Amino acid sequence: MNENGLAELSLIERLRARAAKEHRREVRVGIGDDCALLRPRPGEELAVTTDLSIAGRHFRLDWHCPESVGHRALARGLSDLAAMGARPVAAFLSLGLPRALVRRERGRRAQTGLWVERFFDGLLALAQAYKTPLAGGDLAEAQVALADIVLVGSVPRGKALLRSGARSGDLLYVTGNLGGSAAALKKLPELAASRRRGAAEWPAKAGGPRRLEALLARQLFPQPRVTQGLWLMRRGLATAALDLSDGLSTDLMRLCRESGVGAEVEAAALPVHPGATLEEALNGGEDYELLFTARPEARIPHSVAGVPIARIGRIVRTPSRGPRLVLGGAEWKRPLEARGWEHFS
Amino acid sequence: MNENGLAELSLIERLRARAAKEHRREVRVGIGDDCALLRPRPGEELAVTTDLSIAGRHFRLDWHCPESVGHRALARGLSDLAAMGARPVAAFLSLGLPRALVRRERGRRAQTGLWVERFFDGLLALAQAYKTPLAGGDLAEAQVALADIVLVGSVPRGKALLRSGARSGDLLYVTGNLGGSAAALKKLPELAASRRRGAAEWPAKAGGPRRLEALLARQLFPQPRVTQGLWLMRRGLATAALDLSDGLSTDLMRLCRESGVGAEVEAAALPVHPGATLEEALNGGEDYELLFTARPEARIPHSVAGVPIARIGRIVRTPSRGPRLVLGGAEWKRPLEARGWEHFS
Repeated sequence: MNENGLAELSLIERLRARAAKEHRREVRVGIGDDCALLRPRPGEELAVTTDLSIAGRHFRLDWHCPESVGHRALARGLSDLAAMGARPVAAFLSLGLPRALVRRERGRRAQTGLWVERFFDGLLALAQAYKTPLAGGDLAEAQVALADIVLVGSVPRGKALLRSGARSGDLLYVTGNLGGSAAALKKLPELAASRRRGAAEWPAKAGGPRRLEALLARQLFPQPRVTQGLWLMRRGLATAALDLSDGLSTDLMRLCRESGVGAEVEAAALPVHPGATLEEALNGGEDYELLFTARPEARIPHSVAGVPIARIGRIVRTPSRGPRLVLGGAEWKRPLEARGWEHFS
Repeated sequence: MNENGLAELSLIERLRARAAKEHRREVRVGIGDDCALLRPRPGEELAVTTDLSIAGRHFRLDWHCPESVGHRALARGLSDLAAMGARPVAAFLSLGLPRALVRRERGRRAQTGLWVERFFDGLLALAQAYKTPLAGGDLAEAQVALADIVLVGSVPRGKALLRSGARSGDLLYVTGNLGGSAAALKKLPELAASRRRGAAEWPAKAGGPRRLEALLARQLFPQPRVTQGLWLMRRGLATAALDLSDGLSTDLMRLCRESGVGAEVEAAALPVHPGATLEEALNGGEDYELLFTARPEARIPHSVAGVPIARIGRIVRTPSRGPRLVLGGAEWKRPLEARGWEHFS
């Protein structure tokens, strides 16, 4: 290791020291061997998910501060666990970075930390909040910044929330509100331009009292609904669930397909984020709220652990031509096409 | 989906159909939900490893055929499981690809399959050989081709082979032979030039009778030593083990560091691959053989399941200045510096 370079070993050693602060008895061996070793509790199944984030596709280095990139990478995986009703056990991270990001901060403030260190600040703060040790990973130089996160969670045998359990007559619910992340995304280019002119700083991590800050936090520091997913799993109330990563229209289509059903969404019932449009709430993506179904007789509260829950529609029989989504209201109905995020589309 | 584009959903659907051919009772839910669900056997621990492969760093699109890229990605993860003595349970793949690779073959032969399909041919053939279902993953468009592979394996509680168990007096062993992969790598530019001139095809997958083919197979289709790792785990003979991915000198340094010991390697005892040099055997990397230690009284056979095992040195006490490696022989001793592969070095 010299002044301008960081040997992989030394970067891994420093990361190992930081990651070791978070303990969990189920992680018997963490970073430092060929594999991590996990010891599942008796009677529990393991949920495993991987999520790839690539600069220019899932985030932009000039729009998202390094802490946000780290936070969002982990939040995507935690949100998948939440959608299964799984308790986080361990995270694994494969990180590919251009050399410049492990050397010095890109940008004008030389006194701030290395990009990679700030990335880990964001990731490990969220990991700590959900008691999720970073148990392994891989590190490589890459032409483009990318982070592939793997989450392992635990759920009592047979209790996981699947996408495939929705039945005709079930009611459709969503946690929190929708469209905020997409609405905030549209403000990032302007904020990046302000920063280039020296007229603004990166937004503060915590959504402040101001409405803009709260909106930006939805995009930069989304909160996975782990607590709400665990609540649903323990009560056994949800017949199906998934997390809203690619937009309600696209993700609802997936739930319908896996369950072999259709759905009707009531536009007036959608909890649209202040400052967002109906279009953003339907197709925006990256809200990381939970979409779930329950039998009509199930008593679903108005909020769980401080997060509101809204009934937004119902599950209907599949039409003969496959699942069909209908955006309903008092006056009109129209097909709801999957217009959320898809790669290679 | 149209002629020139592949929607993410349709690519995932086709992959799901191909991956579903491989079953394993421990995989309760595979591709298609927010997470895969694994049901570990009672009394077993899970080994988890991630390995990132990036075009231009770990492989080259003009040197490695798509089948090789897929095979190598999975082989890296299986080799990590082998080093723990773990039995493969499931694989997960995050794949980032430039649009051109999911559309049509790069190169002159339009009649061959899509790059991404041939990638999966290579990956799934190896997965089938080790009965390892592909249980999930992620897919994204990327500026550069990359594959992050996650392997989950299973090992009886407390029986995993760790890097940290080597003690002074232990003998040092290696499976197979070394340096072949590095020696083959040097021949790939010339072969790529021949292909560009139309004077050669991609090398056949199976190492043929000819010496060059056998050498190339070491680089293009390395065989993870899963069977040998399981054998060592079941017999309880190895005090420490890891797989040789980055070169003997670098990987032995890691074993020494985790065990708090030193080591002496006998140059004359190294099983150098025919056509490779001593330098390539020491520092070449990508051999994916197992390096392990055992007590001197342990009876280690000359081969396990057809793969030779060679004694190449011994473990010594750590000098006061930290682990120190010595390349020994009848005539000379010199420090063996870690000269294998490192990122950001």
